[in-house]
Parts: sequence; C-alpha cells; structure tokens
Amino acid sequence: MKKLYISDLVDKIGSEVELCGWVHNKRDHKKIVFIDLRDSTGIIQVIGDEKFKELNPEDVVCIKGVVKSRPEKLINPKMKTGKIEFEAKKLKIISHAEALPFDISKENLDVTLPILLDYRSLSLHHPKIQAIFKVEETVIDAFREALKKKSFFEFQSPVIIPQTAEGGADVFEVKYFDHQAYLSQSPQFYKQIMVGAFEKVFTVNKTLRAEPSVTTRHLAEVITLDAEMAFIDSWTEIMDMAEYTIKYIFEEVDKRNKSELELLGVTLPKIADKIPRIKLREAQEIIFKRTGRDNRKEPDLQPEDEREICRWANEEKKSDLIFVSHYPTSKRPFYTFEDPDDPNYTLSFDILGRGVEWMTGSQRINDLKLLLKKAKERNINIHKSELYLQAFRYGMPPEGGFSFGAERIVMGILGLQNIREASLFPRDMERVDIRLSTLD
Amino acid sequence: MKKLYISDLVDKIGSEVELCGWVHNKRDHKKIVFIDLRDSTGIIQVIGDEKFKELNPEDVVCIKGVVKSRPEKLINPKMKTGKIEFEAKKLKIISHAEALPFDISKENLDVTLPILLDYRSLSLHHPKIQAIFKVEETVIDAFREALKKKSFFEFQSPVIIPQTAEGGADVFEVKYFDHQAYLSQSPQFYKQIMVGAFEKVFTVNKTLRAEPSVTTRHLAEVITLDAEMAFIDSWTEIMDMAEYTIKYIFEEVDKRNKSELELLGVTLPKIADKIPRIKLREAQEIIFKRTGRDNRKEPDLQPEDEREICRWANEEKKSDLIFVSHYPTSKRPFYTFEDPDDPNYTLSFDILGRGVEWMTGSQRINDLKLLLKKAKERNINIHKSELYLQAFRYGMPPEGGFSFGAERIVMGILGLQNIREASLFPRDMERVDIRLSTLD
Repeated sequence: MKKLYISDLVDKIGSEVELCGWVHNKRDHKKIVFIDLRDSTGIIQVIGDEKFKELNPEDVVCIKGVVKSRPEKLINPKMKTGKIEFEAKKLKIISHAEALPFDISKENLDVTLPILLDYRSLSLHHPKIQAIFKVEETVIDAFREALKKKSFFEFQSPVIIPQTAEGGADVFEVKYFDHQAYLSQSPQFYKQIMVGAFEKVFTVNKTLRAEPSVTTRHLAEVITLDAEMAFIDSWTEIMDMAEYTIKYIFEEVDKRNKSELELLGVTLPKIADKIPRIKLREAQEIIFKRTGRDNRKEPDLQPEDEREICRWANEEKKSDLIFVSHYPTSKRPFYTFEDPDDPNYTLSFDILGRGVEWMTGSQRINDLKLLLKKAKERNINIHKSELYLQAFRYGMPPEGGFSFGAERIVMGILGLQNIREASLFPRDMERVDIRLSTLD
Repeated sequence: MKKLYISDLVDKIGSEVELCGWVHNKRDHKKIVFIDLRDSTGIIQVIGDEKFKELNPEDVVCIKGVVKSRPEKLINPKMKTGKIEFEAKKLKIISHAEALPFDISKENLDVTLPILLDYRSLSLHHPKIQAIFKVEETVIDAFREALKKKSFFEFQSPVIIPQTAEGGADVFEVKYFDHQAYLSQSPQFYKQIMVGAFEKVFTVNKTLRAEPSVTTRHLAEVITLDAEMAFIDSWTEIMDMAEYTIKYIFEEVDKRNKSELELLGVTLPKIADKIPRIKLREAQEIIFKRTGRDNRKEPDLQPEDEREICRWANEEKKSDLIFVSHYPTSKRPFYTFEDPDDPNYTLSFDILGRGVEWMTGSQRINDLKLLLKKAKERNINIHKSELYLQAFRYGMPPEGGFSFGAERIVMGILGLQNIREASLFPRDMERVDIRLSTLD
C-alpha cells in the first residue's frame, strides 16, 4: 500500500521513492516531459522522459524516482513543494482517464456550478474543492469534540419516523412495507427523549426536507449538528453552550485547516469575546433606524434583514456572528418555551453569521399537559409520537438545545455564494446527483 | 446548570451540595424515607424526611444535602456509591412522573423485549440499557478514531439516492417532489467516488433496507461504519486495516467502558493476535468434518454454519472472530474483484464474530469497462449512477474497503440475543417506534 504522500517529500531530498497519484497536467518539451503529479496531500513537479508523452490528465500513475532541490531560479514560491521536484526513473500507468470535460488543473475552475455538480466525481479532484470538504470535516469533528469535552453523550437519531409533527408540509414520504412513514426533518423528538435519560446529548444527522423552492441557502438533505441539555437553570445556558461550541469549531478550523484556508484565500469570520445578543424586536428597531425599512411588526427576519443585522454586528460590535432571540410564539415550534416575562415571545434564539442563519435553539416545554395543549392549539396530532410523549410522562427535567447546519457554517466560514458548494452531493428539487429533468 | 453528578460524590464526604436526578425507588420507614436517586452517572441512597413520602418513581427532583459516609455495617459493596449516602436538607420537586407500566428500579428489567420497546423512553432510564448505548457510542467513536489515526478522511454520505443498483429488492422508495428516489442501502458508490479523490475515506451512516423478514439479526435501519482505501498493492491490506480497526474498537471499549461491561457482566470476545483467515470452501470443509453437515457446494454460509465456524475458531484458534474469504462471484455485488488465481471466486471477505457476520469487504473492480460488463451480465442498469461511473472515467486507483454494522458489533461484544437490544429506536417490518399494527 502507498506509504509516502507528496506532502511528506519536502524533507526527503536525495531519496529514491515511489509516488502514486493523478496526472494533474503535462508540459511537453520534446525530450523532456514535465507533469504535475497530484495526490490528496499536494502537487509536485515531475521530470519525465519520452514515455511520459502518452500520459493524459487524471491518469493514475506510480512513479519511482529521486526527490531533488530545484535550481534557485526555478523555485516556485506559490507551491508548497515549490523548492523541490521529482526526477522520474520508472513510470507505471495504473489506469487511464478519458478526455476531461474541462481543465481540472486550473487554479480556479472556470465552469458554472451546475456543470461542476454534473461532474462532481471529477470536480472533487480539484484541490480547492477538496479544501472545502476538509474544512467541513473539521467543523463536524470539532462539534463532536467540543461537546464530548463537556460530557455530552453522542447518539444516533433515526432517519425513518412514524409521523411528522413539527410542521408538516415539507416532509418526504416513504413507502414503508404496507404502511406510510416519513423521513426525519430534525432529530428534535429523539434528542428530547435522549436528554430525559442521558441528560446531555448530541447527534450528527442528515435531515431531510422537501424544500419546495430553489434558493442559494436551502438543500433537501443537510447535515445537522444537534445538542440538547437537561437541568438548566436558565435558557441563557443553552446560548452559552452554543457559543462555546461555535467558538471551539472556529478554533479547530483555524488550527487544523491553515493550508486549506490559505489555498482558498479565506480569513475566518470575526467573533467577539461575547457574541452580541439582542431580541428580534431590538434587531428590527436597529434595522429600521439604519435603513428606514420598517419590518417592526414582522414575526421574523427577512433575508435582507438578516444581512443588515449582521452588518450592524460587524460594524458596531466587531462580530460577524450575532444571537437574535425572542421570536414570537406563533413562529416557533409548539414545544418552544414561552418567556414568562415577555408573553407571546419565546425563549428561542438563532445565531446569524454573515447574513445567514447558522443555528437555531430554544428552551423546551418540559410539562406534558402544557405541551399537549400547545400541540392541540396548532392542530398538531402527535398520537403516533408516543415515545416522545413518554419522555414527558416519566420525568422530564427543564431542558433545551440547539441545532447547527454544517453546510451553513462552512458556507459562512468560507464565504461561499451557494450552499451547494458546501455539500458533497447536494440534493434539491432539481438534482439528486444527476439533474432530475434528465430522468424518464 | 447542574454542575455535580452522582459519580463525583465519592470524594465529597462532608460537603453540602445539590443533586438533581430521578427518583429510582423509595423505601418508606415512616419518619425517615429513603430514596435511591439516579442520574446519568450513577445511583445514591438519599435519607429524606416525611416530605419525601409524596415522591414517586421517576419524579425529577433537586435535593440539597450533605454527603456522608455510611456506617460500616450498612456499606453496600454492590454499589459504586455504596460507601456513601446523602442526607437531604431541602427537596425541590421539578416534575412528577405518571405511574410506571413496570418497575424500572429492578436490577434486571423483567419485561419482554416488545414491551421494553413500546416504552423505550422509559426503559432508556435503566442503567443497564444505558450501558448498552454507552458501549455503542464507544464503538462508533473508536471506529472514527482508529481511521483518523491512519489519515483517513471522514465524509458524509447521502441518504437519498437516484437509483438502486446494488441489489434492488430491499430498497425503500421515496416520493421525491415529482420523481421517485430511493433510500441508501449502503454508502458504497459514494465511498468509491470519494476514494477516487481523497484516497482513504470513512463514513458513518444510517443505511436503510426494506428487510422483508423479522429475524433477531436484521433491522430496517442500521448504523454502518464504512471505510475505503486506494492504492492498495493487495486485497489483504484491506483485511489488515479492518483487523486493526476492530482491534482498536475492542481496546477502546475495554478502556472507556469498564463500568458498563462490569454492570452488564460481560467479558469482551477473544481476538487472536492475528485473526484467523480461511476461504469459504475451507470453512465448509471444516464444518463438514466437525458436524457431517455437507454444505460444501453452497455459495454462502447458513446461520448454523456461521455459528459452527465461530465455534471452531474459538476452540482451535483461540479467537472469537474469524475472516472468511473468497465468496463466489455470483454471491457478491457486481463491483467485486475476482481472484485472478481462483476464477469465479472473489477477493472478498467477511468477519464473523460469535456466530454472526460483523463486517463485509472486498477489493473492487477499478476498470470501467470491466465494471460495465459485470453490471450488464447481471442486468443491472446504472445509467442514473453517472457520478459513480465518472469516478472510473477520470482515474480510479486500485482500491477496496469494508463495512461494519455497529449494532452487530455491540450485539456481539455484549452477547445480546436480539439486535433490537442494540438499537436505540429499532425499525423493522413491525415497528417504527410504535407497533405498526396499531396504525390506522
């Protein structure tokens, strides 16, 4: 098995080694043929002979040769391996690639997003695309690590659910043997069940929503990072935990993904020592004062409002993230706890980052009677969610939790324009790997 | 927020603290009322006054009081906290529980599995049930950790897929907007796509199979632990990696779950220094010699054969795990690599543990033409799996991988009789949280 990676070569000058990877590109100088060889860790210039002429981009090869210093004037300061090159002795072609639909060796791919997704398996070969998903890996891993450090228990929440109770409309139906079942839109009910036994829990899931519109911020399948915690004294402790978690994620991305951030030319968003916290109505007031746009009676923030309040946080509070709390009861799920000091408004909160919602959370109702009353008021039938109700029948502490969208965080951190760029295999109304319009 | 857990108390003798948790049980001695208080970390005896009379099992309470040593003769050696008790000063009832359907404070629950699952949210309160899932958490976490140490990249595989190509029959259909889509039975295609770019990858998923039968070993929704690795020189390297991984998992369970294993009275299965590796035909020969049962012409092992070959490995090789390799081409998926030295048999392997399959793996075909030929021979149409085919068009190294079932490992490690015990919310033909027979 391959033992040596391109990123290992910098201190191997003079060694004879074997490298395996993909032909990134080729420059034919008659008797000498240069290729850039790429693997998952980097790219190196290889000096080959006439046998290299037959190579084409993305061919898989193994090459024996010697690692050399480049002559001073040929050093390429833009490449990590720019001070070295590889003198080939023996070329083995492992598999040939077909002609490429676009040039994958350009520093920036110049194809549209739909084309990039049509050829996802190829575009994933590009170092900048790989960098996005290396950051995403860290985001998810750091979420887990942050909460494990606080003794949270990780559990696996199911995909198939007996009933949709949270909102209803945007749910996918599954033919489940002779019955009908649904795909989970959120692990909400299950994390509440779990918190009633394990006290502090988290779970990483794909959640599935039949989003009936095509926007740059929504997907039908997203990765959600969910946490729930019991025995809280105040709802602000949930915000504190969410704040700790997102800061931990930022620190880990900063630590683990230096080269990816550099490659992508990205600096992390600013987080203030304490992320500013304002109520929805305060946000609306600020927006009104700054723009004259009067959405003060609206129950929620519009996309333009989200962008404006983030601009305000950036300018006035030196933070690219902001908590907005106290959404009206009518706009939040039935299980959301109402603020006793501010009736008709809930102990709920979002984190907005760079103009987009990254997280949503709240304290939950932990009294069964009240919960059933709230469900009934909204005509929500939860009789198939008996396990959820049991959690409240058999001893539920005061609790709450939050849910981050992994793709939203990655999009925000990297300043991507479309959430599809932050999803390996984005699903939406128009695409499940292939464009649905091409189906029979 | 709750700061102190019951497991923290052993060295807190003399301290005045507040504990929060659930009333595990109550012993009323007129003026003195004893309760066992339980939280997610343990149980402690609490000495209360008459106010404790009104408490019922699973009520949620917070109690201020003093941690005390128990008198010598009242020490309970069976409890971790058996040397201490808690003298209550002030009781706060947080929420009342309804009457329980069964006694949750028994050391062993004496209800049938269906009842236990009907009341899953309650049975999860039981320390032994919690212990199962704490072990499962470690299994999954250790899988990730083992492969991260070998520089594998973690990715998230999708749930919704455009086409079922692996076998077909046992797939769930989803109404996907105006189209039909399916639920992923395995991340196979996606991990092959990923390995073509990232070289070494792993992924933890819920995979979904419409298993049309009810057995003690199958679920409709399982947690799969998948890995895939490129640039292999030999298929045996894949087995080596799988062996390293399962050993790592065992070591971590042994390290992190000592108290759970003790509570459940379990010793880990034996693993030989090198897990024995035999071909299917050798296994069949051994079984024939040991039992007279002649399945030497069968293309696979029957459940009774799996148990027998595990008994043999235990007795003759001092190992509760065994690799069985070289399943016939016809019994393995179309993408499986055939052994050039043993035609009609594949470079495929399973790990059987304590009589059940825990893992399956193989080297894969990495040549597009051959892959298409094999698909065609089986009448498998993969035209909707264009991204999968692209992976081979644009440079695929020699590669292979494996897939563990998390519940199977937990079942095996803990000696559980039914896989449903190893699933938090088991789904099968008869149940999705509630029994489907109770639905309209």
